[in-house]
Amino acid sequence: MRLVTYRADLTASARLGVVVGDLVVDMEALGLASGLDLPSDMLDFIDMGPAVVTAVSALVEDCEGDFPVGCALPLANVKLLAPIPRPRKNLFGIGLNYTEHVAESAKTLDTSPDLPREPVIFTKPPTCVIGPGDAIEHNAAITQQLDWEVELGAVIGRRAKGVSREDALSYVFGYTLVLDMSARDCRRAGQWVYSKGQDSYAPMGPCIVTADEIPDPQTLDLKLWVNGVEKQNGNTAYMLFKVDELVADISKGMTLDPGDVIATGTPAGVGAGRDPQEFLWPGDVVEAELEKIGRIRHPVVAV
Amino acid sequence: MRLVTYRADLTASARLGVVVGDLVVDMEALGLASGLDLPSDMLDFIDMGPAVVTAVSALVEDCEGDFPVGCALPLANVKLLAPIPRPRKNLFGIGLNYTEHVAESAKTLDTSPDLPREPVIFTKPPTCVIGPGDAIEHNAAITQQLDWEVELGAVIGRRAKGVSREDALSYVFGYTLVLDMSARDCRRAGQWVYSKGQDSYAPMGPCIVTADEIPDPQTLDLKLWVNGVEKQNGNTAYMLFKVDELVADISKGMTLDPGDVIATGTPAGVGAGRDPQEFLWPGDVVEAELEKIGRIRHPVVAV
Repeated sequence: MRLVTYRADLTASARLGVVVGDLVVDMEALGLASGLDLPSDMLDFIDMGPAVVTAVSALVEDCEGDFPVGCALPLANVKLLAPIPRPRKNLFGIGLNYTEHVAESAKTLDTSPDLPREPVIFTKPPTCVIGPGDAIEHNAAITQQLDWEVELGAVIGRRAKGVSREDALSYVFGYTLVLDMSARDCRRAGQWVYSKGQDSYAPMGPCIVTADEIPDPQTLDLKLWVNGVEKQNGNTAYMLFKVDELVADISKGMTLDPGDVIATGTPAGVGAGRDPQEFLWPGDVVEAELEKIGRIRHPVVAV
Repeated sequence: MRLVTYRADLTASARLGVVVGDLVVDMEALGLASGLDLPSDMLDFIDMGPAVVTAVSALVEDCEGDFPVGCALPLANVKLLAPIPRPRKNLFGIGLNYTEHVAESAKTLDTSPDLPREPVIFTKPPTCVIGPGDAIEHNAAITQQLDWEVELGAVIGRRAKGVSREDALSYVFGYTLVLDMSARDCRRAGQWVYSKGQDSYAPMGPCIVTADEIPDPQTLDLKLWVNGVEKQNGNTAYMLFKVDELVADISKGMTLDPGDVIATGTPAGVGAGRDPQEFLWPGDVVEAELEKIGRIRHPVVAV
């Protein structure tokens, strides 16, 4: 399933929907019409566990595109929000997780040229998250080095603590596209939170595709353009630490909860690694695409 | 007011209370007896804003120790939890925020001997938080260098974005005691989240004292003992970046929300800075005290 959080119009409240073709089927309304108690919020749905994903998938399929009255809206008419507009804890981010990005980072940032032996974990506050089309803030009082990073986001589906690599993917609810925006000149004593944690620095969307539809998350093309010019073009096959390793590693000592998001690192092609370096400025437009997930587009706006 | 989250017995649900002398007055019950709609949860109370703090303070004072039937319990009979058992985002932590701790860290960790020019910010997931008396986990598969750090925690009371240093303290709801437990051998490419973010690594308590009772947070003694032996003895006067500067700095680009916690850094005396180095092992007991807030005591337990 392709799950979205949407508003029917700009003043309506945020609701959970399933994208079927060019329609958004409202989850709660579909439940009401079908005698099932389904939620209107993505986190509440994730909390219900994997059996409900299967049940709703079957329900949607049974409709064969003919949904009960009042359940479906044209996708083109709704405003999509980030699939999880406000996560319950900081997003986990993974640094230096693609070989060529390790190399380009070592050239111009203060990171080592050696491949990391363990995942390099940092976090981004929930206040970073913005939805498709929302503005990425350029605050000139904070940064002159605003940079892009396109990433696969893994969304946790069940509480995970001490899970093995073999079992790890069964704890993943689904996948989404996350941009790990980074103010390169805001690292502090090496810590990245201030650099990567500013408001609007985690564009997310356009949907979460449930894990049953992406049995192998290490096969996905991911690309990013600035003002229409391709800047990143990679594939999740080249991640140093795969999604299953990341879930196992983090959950060794840090409990992962339903709805937690892991942004799994970016391939080469960021602005800081270019010669000469390139950064984002107000008026620029960042567009990114992740195979099987979709595309998001964000203007950079002065604040 | 001294606010606590407590269970009346081990199976009861968590509730919000006010400590008055040797009693815990239940907030919701006091409200019901007084015709006020008061919550049973700390975060819900913080969300209600500063006017409610004033109103409840007056209400408690008016009782003159004689509380309505069913509102008060002996403090000695309840189980205290962390004042905010599950924050809504990662705690903000501040590294290298006391001069002598900067010096001791540079001796044995990979940090600079120079004083930081800006606050060094990292985060600890909500899953780190444990309450008074709860076990600090020693996971030998993760660390052989489990260390202590006693800190003043500032709890945000109102949404803060771009606040000035002058206004910053008006955004603080209150103060608590936080231990920033750290696995020194788990830093990764310099990032501290894995080192400081393990489950149980943020003991918090025993209460939040509202900001009206601590007009100047830079005057508080803080101490820590391991197995009864004093290891840290400092005062918040010696923080490099004061609470008001931290709130202003973080909120410059990262929105602070009601209930957010900033652990403001630790004075000298951590285990990694000693000669020879000292670390915690199962069976050890960590005890810490913060002036005006109180004392917490935690066993270190193998997991």
